[in-house]
Amino acid sequence: MANATGTAEAQGVTRALAEFVVAARVESIPDAVRHEAARSLVNWMGCALGGSHHETLDTALAALQPFAGPPQAGVIGRSERLDAPTAALLNGMSAHVLDFDDTHLRTLLHPSVPVASSLLALAEYRLQNGKVLPGAEFLEAFIVGVDVECRIANAIYPTHIEQWYITGTAGVFGAAAAVGRVLGLDAAGITRAFGIAGTQAAGLREMAGTMCKCFVHGRAAQNGMLSAFMAQAGFTSSDRVIEAPRGFARVLVGDCDLGVILDGLGERWELALNTYKPHACGVVAHPVIDGCLEVRNKHGVTPDQIVAVDLRVHPLALKLTGIKAPRGGLESKWSLFHSAAVVFCDGVAGEAQYTDDRVFNPQVAALRERVNAVADAGLRDDEAHVAVTLVDGRRIDIHVEHALGSVDNPMTDGDLERKFTDLAGDTLPAGRAAQLLESCWQIGKLADAAQLARFAVP
Amino acid sequence: MANATGTAEAQGVTRALAEFVVAARVESIPDAVRHEAARSLVNWMGCALGGSHHETLDTALAALQPFAGPPQAGVIGRSERLDAPTAALLNGMSAHVLDFDDTHLRTLLHPSVPVASSLLALAEYRLQNGKVLPGAEFLEAFIVGVDVECRIANAIYPTHIEQWYITGTAGVFGAAAAVGRVLGLDAAGITRAFGIAGTQAAGLREMAGTMCKCFVHGRAAQNGMLSAFMAQAGFTSSDRVIEAPRGFARVLVGDCDLGVILDGLGERWELALNTYKPHACGVVAHPVIDGCLEVRNKHGVTPDQIVAVDLRVHPLALKLTGIKAPRGGLESKWSLFHSAAVVFCDGVAGEAQYTDDRVFNPQVAALRERVNAVADAGLRDDEAHVAVTLVDGRRIDIHVEHALGSVDNPMTDGDLERKFTDLAGDTLPAGRAAQLLESCWQIGKLADAAQLARFAVP
Repeated sequence: MANATGTAEAQGVTRALAEFVVAARVESIPDAVRHEAARSLVNWMGCALGGSHHETLDTALAALQPFAGPPQAGVIGRSERLDAPTAALLNGMSAHVLDFDDTHLRTLLHPSVPVASSLLALAEYRLQNGKVLPGAEFLEAFIVGVDVECRIANAIYPTHIEQWYITGTAGVFGAAAAVGRVLGLDAAGITRAFGIAGTQAAGLREMAGTMCKCFVHGRAAQNGMLSAFMAQAGFTSSDRVIEAPRGFARVLVGDCDLGVILDGLGERWELALNTYKPHACGVVAHPVIDGCLEVRNKHGVTPDQIVAVDLRVHPLALKLTGIKAPRGGLESKWSLFHSAAVVFCDGVAGEAQYTDDRVFNPQVAALRERVNAVADAGLRDDEAHVAVTLVDGRRIDIHVEHALGSVDNPMTDGDLERKFTDLAGDTLPAGRAAQLLESCWQIGKLADAAQLARFAVP
Repeated sequence: MANATGTAEAQGVTRALAEFVVAARVESIPDAVRHEAARSLVNWMGCALGGSHHETLDTALAALQPFAGPPQAGVIGRSERLDAPTAALLNGMSAHVLDFDDTHLRTLLHPSVPVASSLLALAEYRLQNGKVLPGAEFLEAFIVGVDVECRIANAIYPTHIEQWYITGTAGVFGAAAAVGRVLGLDAAGITRAFGIAGTQAAGLREMAGTMCKCFVHGRAAQNGMLSAFMAQAGFTSSDRVIEAPRGFARVLVGDCDLGVILDGLGERWELALNTYKPHACGVVAHPVIDGCLEVRNKHGVTPDQIVAVDLRVHPLALKLTGIKAPRGGLESKWSLFHSAAVVFCDGVAGEAQYTDDRVFNPQVAALRERVNAVADAGLRDDEAHVAVTLVDGRRIDIHVEHALGSVDNPMTDGDLERKFTDLAGDTLPAGRAAQLLESCWQIGKLADAAQLARFAVP
C-alpha cells in the first residue's frame, strides 16, 4: 500500500472531498442511486422504530435528558423532543442498536446511521427558524454524505476495523458533509467541518456486546452535525485532517491508500453498494444463517436431531462474530454460534432471537455447544458452507453462494417493506406506519423532509 | 517495553483504578498535595478567566448555544449559563485556549482542564437539585481525578503524544473518575464510566494552532462528565477498556507498560508533579524564553543589536514548538522562534505576545528570521542553551539549567497570585478577583464548591 501522505493526489484529498460536497449536483445522480437512497431510508427508519424502546435508549435518555436543550427535534418512535444534535445521537443509536441496519459491504460501514440521523434532526431544527428542508435536498445531501464516509472508509479498510468501529470514525465525516451541504457552507467551510469532525473520530471495537457500540455510532451523527454548525460559525481546524502526517488516516490506520478516496468521484456512487440485513445480527454471520435455515426448512431438521453443526466461513466472520458463549442479548449478535443454534430452534433470526431470554434458553444454549466453525480464506464474505450431522448418521451439506441481502442477492423492495412493517409494529399504529413508509419511498418529492419525523411519533 | 496486555497486573488495571477512585480517603492525602491542588485551581481559574473572551470561545458559544440545555452552570468570566456538560466543555476550552494552563511535566498532560472544569459544572448542577458539593469533597475528587488521568498518561507517554493530545485522550478518564466519585458510583459504575469515556477518547495533534486544540481538551471534561452520568443510569460498556486487546492503550498507543498505572497507587500522588507556566506558550519553549529574558535584562540587549540567536534545546522542544513561521496568534504558541524573538522585543511572554498583531509585527518577524535552533538529546526538557551574537561582534552564552515553572524551579504561591491577577484583570473587578482568588486557596474549607463559579461571573 502507498504511504498515506506519499501520493500526489492524497495531498489535497480533504479539500477535494469538500469541493465535491459543495459542487455535486442532483442531476448527476442516477435514478438507481436515488432509489437506493429511498431503500436505505426505509430500512434506517424501520430499524430506528424497532430499536426506539430498547433498554439502551431508555438508559441513554435517562442520563442525557436533564442536560438536553430546547425541543427542536423528535426521537423516532418516542414522544421526547430534544435539541437537534442530541436527537441525532439518539436516532443514530436506535437505528443501530439492533444491529439490523444497512451495510456498505466493501467496508462494513453502516452508512445511514450518521447521515440520515443528523439530516432528519436538521430538517426539524430548520423548521424552528422558519426554513423548510425539501425532500429533494435531503435526498441529495444524504447521497453525498454517504459517498464521503464510504470513500474515506474505502481507504482505511480493512486494517482500521481490526480496532475501530468504522461507522464511528469515518461516519462522522459523512454527517459533517451532509449537514454542511444543507447549511450552504463553501468548500473552506466543509474543510473546517471535516477537521472538527475528524479530531473527534472515535469508537473502540472493544465495546462489542455493550451499549457503547451503538453509542459511538450515534455520536458520529451528533458530532458530525455539530462540526458543521461550528464550521459555519467560523471555528477553525486543520485544512488537511485526512491526509496530514498527524491526521486521521495516518493516526487511526497507519499506512493506507488515500488515492482511492477520489477515485471516480461524482461518477461512481458508493450508495449503490449499500445492502440491507434480513437477519438482526452482524452481517458476516448471514451466510451461515441462510444455510442453517435451508437445512431446517428444506430438510425438516429439528434441534434434537442435531449432533453437530460444522461451519466453514470467511475469516472475518469468525473474527467479528466469533463469540462462543455470549453473555447476553447484545453480545449474541456477535456470535456465529448463537445465530446458528437459535435459527434451528426458531426458524428466524429477528430481533427476538438476540435477547437474554433466547441466549439463556437451555435448548438454544445446548445446541450452541454443538456448533463448530473454521475460517477459510478461500471464501468470499457473503459465502459459507454449513454441514449438519444428525443422530441417524446423516450429514447434510449446504453451500451458500451469496447470502440474502448481499450485493449479488439483494433484498427486494417488498422484502424491505415487510422488514419495516415488522419493526414498526410494536411502536406505530398500522395506518401511521404505512404513511411513514410511503413518505420514505417518496422522500425526493416531499415538500418538507421533516414530515418523516412527524409520522415517526407514536 | 512490556506488552500492553502481557503482564499480570495489567489484566485488571481498569477495575483496580476504579476501586481506587471509590476507596481513596481524604486523610491519606498529604497536606503538600492538597496545597498543590489549591495552587492548580488558582492557576486553572486564572487561565479560564484570561481565555474567557477569546475569539475561540465566542465562536464556540455562537455555534453551541442554540442547542444548549437548561441554565445549570456558568461559563467562567462570562454571563452565559448553560447545561452543565456544555459549561464544562467551554470552561475547559477557556482554561486551555491561551496554552497557559498547568502541565504534568512527566507526560505533558494538562491536569486541571478536564477535572476542574467538569467538577465545577457538577457543583453548580447539584445545587439545582438542592445538593451541595462541599469544597473538601471537590478537592478530594480533583486530586483523585488528576491521579487517574496522569497515571494513564504515564503508561502511554511518550509514544502517544507523537500523534494525540494526551489531555484529550487520557484526560477524559480523569473527568469520569472525579465526577463518578462525587456521584457516589461504586467500582463497577466507575469501571463502566471509564469504558464510556475511553471509547470517546480523541484529539489529533494535527489540530495544533487551530481552535480545535482547546476544543478537544474541553471535550475531555464534557465527555468524561457525561460518561459518569451515563454509568450512573446503568449504561453498559467494557469492564477493561484500558487493557483489553482492542482497548484504549493498545489501539491508541500500541505496546506500552500498563504496570506503571498502579505503581504506588494511593501512596504517591501525581498532582505533586504538577507545574505552572510563567509564559503563555508551549511549556517546552520555556527554558529558551528564560534564557532570552536573561540576555535582554542582564545584558541590556535590544533587538536591533542582534545578528543571530542560536538555541540548543531538548528534542521535544523542536518537535512540539518547531514552527518556523507561525501563521497567526494560536500557532505562534508552538513556535520557539517566535517566543525567542518576541521576548527580546517585549521583555515578557504573556498572552499579548501570542497574537496576530505580534506575529505580523515587522520587528518581531524580522528578528524571528535570525533565530536558529538545534536539538540536543543530551539536554533535559527543562534545560536550554541560548547564544546571542551581537552586531559589535560580542557573543553572550546563557545556560538555563531549570526553566522557571519546572519541578526543580517552581513558581511560588506569590508568582501564581500575580499570574492570576494579571489574567483576571480584563474580566473581573479587582475586588471580585481577590475574593475568587481567596476562595480558590480556601477550596478545602468552602461549604459549597460552587461558590467559585459565583465569584467567577463579571
